[in-house]
Amino acid sequence: MVAVAILAAGRGTRMKSDLPKVCHTLGSLSLVERVLKSCLSLAPSRLLVVVGYQSEQVKKSLAAYSNVEFVEQTQQLGTGHAVQQLLPHLDGFTDDLLILNGDVPLLRSSTIKQLLETHQAHRNAATLLTAHLPNPQGYGRVFCDDQNLLNQIVEDRDCTPTQKENCRINAGVYCFHWPQLATALPKLEANNDQKEYYLTDVVNFLEPVMAVDVADYQEILGINDRKQLANAYEILQTRVKDDWMKAGVTLINPDSITIDDTVELQPDVTIEPQTHLRGNTQIGTGSRIGPGSLIENSQLGENVTVLYSVVSDSVVKHGTRIGPYTHLRGHVEVGESCRVGNFVELKNTTVGDRTNVAHLSYLGDAQLGNKVNIGAGTITANYDGVKKHRTQIGDRTKTGSNSVLVAPITLGQDVTIAAGSTVTEDVPDDCLVLARARQVVKPGWRLKTPSETSSS
Amino acid sequence: MVAVAILAAGRGTRMKSDLPKVCHTLGSLSLVERVLKSCLSLAPSRLLVVVGYQSEQVKKSLAAYSNVEFVEQTQQLGTGHAVQQLLPHLDGFTDDLLILNGDVPLLRSSTIKQLLETHQAHRNAATLLTAHLPNPQGYGRVFCDDQNLLNQIVEDRDCTPTQKENCRINAGVYCFHWPQLATALPKLEANNDQKEYYLTDVVNFLEPVMAVDVADYQEILGINDRKQLANAYEILQTRVKDDWMKAGVTLINPDSITIDDTVELQPDVTIEPQTHLRGNTQIGTGSRIGPGSLIENSQLGENVTVLYSVVSDSVVKHGTRIGPYTHLRGHVEVGESCRVGNFVELKNTTVGDRTNVAHLSYLGDAQLGNKVNIGAGTITANYDGVKKHRTQIGDRTKTGSNSVLVAPITLGQDVTIAAGSTVTEDVPDDCLVLARARQVVKPGWRLKTPSETSSS
Amino acid sequence: MVAVAILAAGRGTRMKSDLPKVCHTLGSLSLVERVLKSCLSLAPSRLLVVVGYQSEQVKKSLAAYSNVEFVEQTQQLGTGHAVQQLLPHLDGFTDDLLILNGDVPLLRSSTIKQLLETHQAHRNAATLLTAHLPNPQGYGRVFCDDQNLLNQIVEDRDCTPTQKENCRINAGVYCFHWPQLATALPKLEANNDQKEYYLTDVVNFLEPVMAVDVADYQEILGINDRKQLANAYEILQTRVKDDWMKAGVTLINPDSITIDDTVELQPDVTIEPQTHLRGNTQIGTGSRIGPGSLIENSQLGENVTVLYSVVSDSVVKHGTRIGPYTHLRGHVEVGESCRVGNFVELKNTTVGDRTNVAHLSYLGDAQLGNKVNIGAGTITANYDGVKKHRTQIGDRTKTGSNSVLVAPITLGQDVTIAAGSTVTEDVPDDCLVLARARQVVKPGWRLKTPSETSSS
Repeated sequence: MVAVAILAAGRGTRMKSDLPKVCHTLGSLSLVERVLKSCLSLAPSRLLVVVGYQSEQVKKSLAAYSNVEFVEQTQQLGTGHAVQQLLPHLDGFTDDLLILNGDVPLLRSSTIKQLLETHQAHRNAATLLTAHLPNPQGYGRVFCDDQNLLNQIVEDRDCTPTQKENCRINAGVYCFHWPQLATALPKLEANNDQKEYYLTDVVNFLEPVMAVDVADYQEILGINDRKQLANAYEILQTRVKDDWMKAGVTLINPDSITIDDTVELQPDVTIEPQTHLRGNTQIGTGSRIGPGSLIENSQLGENVTVLYSVVSDSVVKHGTRIGPYTHLRGHVEVGESCRVGNFVELKNTTVGDRTNVAHLSYLGDAQLGNKVNIGAGTITANYDGVKKHRTQIGDRTKTGSNSVLVAPITLGQDVTIAAGSTVTEDVPDDCLVLARARQVVKPGWRLKTPSETSSS
Repeated sequence: MVAVAILAAGRGTRMKSDLPKVCHTLGSLSLVERVLKSCLSLAPSRLLVVVGYQSEQVKKSLAAYSNVEFVEQTQQLGTGHAVQQLLPHLDGFTDDLLILNGDVPLLRSSTIKQLLETHQAHRNAATLLTAHLPNPQGYGRVFCDDQNLLNQIVEDRDCTPTQKENCRINAGVYCFHWPQLATALPKLEANNDQKEYYLTDVVNFLEPVMAVDVADYQEILGINDRKQLANAYEILQTRVKDDWMKAGVTLINPDSITIDDTVELQPDVTIEPQTHLRGNTQIGTGSRIGPGSLIENSQLGENVTVLYSVVSDSVVKHGTRIGPYTHLRGHVEVGESCRVGNFVELKNTTVGDRTNVAHLSYLGDAQLGNKVNIGAGTITANYDGVKKHRTQIGDRTKTGSNSVLVAPITLGQDVTIAAGSTVTEDVPDDCLVLARARQVVKPGWRLKTPSETSSS
Repeated sequence: MVAVAILAAGRGTRMKSDLPKVCHTLGSLSLVERVLKSCLSLAPSRLLVVVGYQSEQVKKSLAAYSNVEFVEQTQQLGTGHAVQQLLPHLDGFTDDLLILNGDVPLLRSSTIKQLLETHQAHRNAATLLTAHLPNPQGYGRVFCDDQNLLNQIVEDRDCTPTQKENCRINAGVYCFHWPQLATALPKLEANNDQKEYYLTDVVNFLEPVMAVDVADYQEILGINDRKQLANAYEILQTRVKDDWMKAGVTLINPDSITIDDTVELQPDVTIEPQTHLRGNTQIGTGSRIGPGSLIENSQLGENVTVLYSVVSDSVVKHGTRIGPYTHLRGHVEVGESCRVGNFVELKNTTVGDRTNVAHLSYLGDAQLGNKVNIGAGTITANYDGVKKHRTQIGDRTKTGSNSVLVAPITLGQDVTIAAGSTVTEDVPDDCLVLARARQVVKPGWRLKTPSETSSS
């Protein structure tokens, strides 16, 4: 059994933000939520988050996790001080405590697991994560014997020139046997320029202390400013994209693509440049997405193509072509082998199979059958100024160009709406509907009166 | 005279694909077609492609090359085995044979030519291409005397530490004097872990064998997975983009731009970020394309601007402005000094000079004269549910906003269509056309009945 | 007091351009304008620009700076020859002269200031800027004593192997005491392969000459071809983007974003990928811009969102959502908490607060009140073929789908326009307007006659 404490009380002044640092997002998750999720696979018996600066914001960003206990650190007097706040909460707790930082979001679950397993296998008092940095300047150096048992940690400013050459540094991630830590915590002193209590110092009171190396030093990078945030995002994206390429997904110009780590792709999907896949999105084999598309929380079937479009909270079935310049705005389901494109917006609308909405249409709160053809410029007038109404369109029905369907309205099957018609009443199956004026031609015109065009 | 054999029988398991590896595309060409094109300048007397895994797919991807002879390798037992399959096909052939790999697509024609010329100048039995890799790990090392005559090739696993320091490696590209190779091929044995016949081993039976260095080691990179495919694409793109910059084209944020190597650009063209130029595309001097545009198989004249648009299989003449958010969908020709933009789609349509289609229009199967003004929301109803019909519009004609032209229809010159009109019959020159109802005003309204707007 | 001379006479053959090299743009400024602006903080008493190749083009690109004196160098015989042309113009001038190059656009104002201050503090005859290049090949090496007083400058080709190891090079940027320079200039000779007069040689006739190092060697990179232009743009962009990240702006995928150095952003702005901010643009805190947007010369308030849109010369107030696929084309002002999006173009139009123009509209030359709802497909017919007319729409008025407002026209407050209506006459407050035909239904239709749809 293990308890986990996440330190998330700091402001993060260098972020220059109204938001506390750990609430900034990396991909679709806040930093602190990302850290929290990284330890869930350990099934921790307790999950404590130390909050302080704008604690309400931090609590809100973790509201979905009902088992989190928040511990207030009203003054921010260092990492040691933060962990001291746990003492009343863990009174009588006899197991291990894993300590993570809310601003170190790239740590892999496997690394945390390895740290914990080493800790428990050796029954250490403390086990700390170390990394070998190409440029360790500014970090405390870790010196161990050949069993990885800690000799000492020396702060950068106190290092001799020889010590400085050691690039094994303290990552600030620890496993402790809580009863021993609880005894040591009160001994910490704030004998330094910052007048802060450092958790690092606690290792001096514990025995044995062991170090475990992280394989990839990028995992332990902390976020202190927006540049580091952008850098962490790039590292995360490289991980995700490399994994998908390994799994058989073609990425064209991968640097311009972003893929949330919540997305799932099948082999032989092709992602074109400048495409962004976000949230709970799945895409089927043979599909080609982009360039220039944003897919959020949507399920796309096999052999779907999306070109320069935005798809949110929608389902698109196999063989359907979307775009260019389409917006599926939410609660949209498009059937198989459809064509939706060229300046078309769908919202809260279901489209049957082999139906086309090819040009300049807005359909809201509508249900379309199979093999429907929606003419260019067709619009559902779904709003009466007070509430929304539904439009229903039967199989094989065709609407003429620039027609308006005033909801609530039902068009039957095999209906034909003449171009330019505004339809206000229900239409039975197999009917032609016209609602337009006859054509009047006046010769000898040549710009004598307004032509009512729109122009630049 | 030289024959060329391209090895293209492998599956490429690490691609994790239903498609054979050599059929994956790099830019607009499949890997194997790219390799094939790289040797066409040698005018080979025979062009053999060894196929195996999904051979039908590979044949299909080369269907345009009528002179290719396909050689089946039903089992894939190594490169030596692949070349053994050529024996019955090259019976009696007395010239040189160049062997290329279908998954090594970055080799330049000039490199191949240099290999062949060296081979022929020295009357070698075999000449092999070598490269100096920054990280040669895993590759067979090539040891030569100071005349570049081969001493030995040592596989990576058999190298002594000193031998490992040699970073000259075997690129797997060869020129052979066929009669000598034909004698040696039956001597190959599969004495290795993989139980495969390696073409490399054949050099042991030939004399003299010479090595030729490739200047740019990136040319010999093979494609085994999607990451390497993405990497090869980046190398190819850097080549193409550097060449165009050298030729006087301005690229803004070049990393975000892709240009197929089939595209031709004149000096003083400017390509803005996130723009993709594909296929048989040419662009004239002074034009500015992008940001965010996709141009495929299209000819753009001088001083054309394209902003956030998709142009496919179309011609745009000089001084015309396209976009933002325009789709020229195919078989479109737009004249000089036109404006086409803002949510406009054209398909199979010819537009004269100084004509504007500026807003929210779909024109399909239409022919427009000069100085025409198409009002916002104008649509050609070109489809009667069975087939397509044409719309013809004369010079200086103006269509009102939200008008529909029901095809087949001809509007003469100097015609004015009133806003909101659906026009179903031909209109002679110099006429005004109205087809709409009179305005009726009912006071004291204030939302008592539906307003028939569309909303969110 | 200091005079500044900018050398801008060269053609720049390797640019392969019709435009003189210094007129090419880097971000929103030409190279030469960028150089000129970098020295304005010195408040120079004289500002001379030496022009030659296509001098009219260069003059035009600096037309906004009325105090610039142009000096013609009709033949381009080297940098020394260029500075010799200043002699008649600076006759009797007794102060210092700073010499900058029109094709070295990355030099910071602070660097120039430091050069000048060092020059003046030491009363040098000449002070030259030096840089330490990682690869100094091709550059003249600068040798100084430990007081930074110049010993000699040795051209690359004349360097001994030991001298070649010195990577301190001459950046070609100088401060001179003009009376001393004026005496030395006539002594220059063209004793070299190029038969050119080199300004560098003048230091042989002056005493004392001091060198000042630039901290960041990238500042002294010159532009000779389009690749170097792209490289300089990347350096400039990295500077600008790093500064904004430091100031509290989140950039997602920063490599794909470009921000002109004229733009101003507040903290907690988020810029999504593939977004371009240009010209005189300001964006308020909490706003999220992109992906895929272009904002030019526009003022966006707080908490504005822009998604896949183009905004030019416009104002958008706080809480308003723009896009996807919106074009604010110029002279547009959108109020607070509005929604403008989905294939909407506004031009020369004012929109009140809490007003929606949500789908498929073109509004030009219009003024909208508060809480207006513009139905999908509504168009202002603002052009009568001769001139533009205005449309005015009162508070809380609603237009139906596919309605046309034929300008000049005024709709009062609380007006409702029925869907499909073309409105040609003014409407008083609180009225319902209909202008459409009754619906006629003909049963037994099933595709006997044209359906007037538009299709592919």
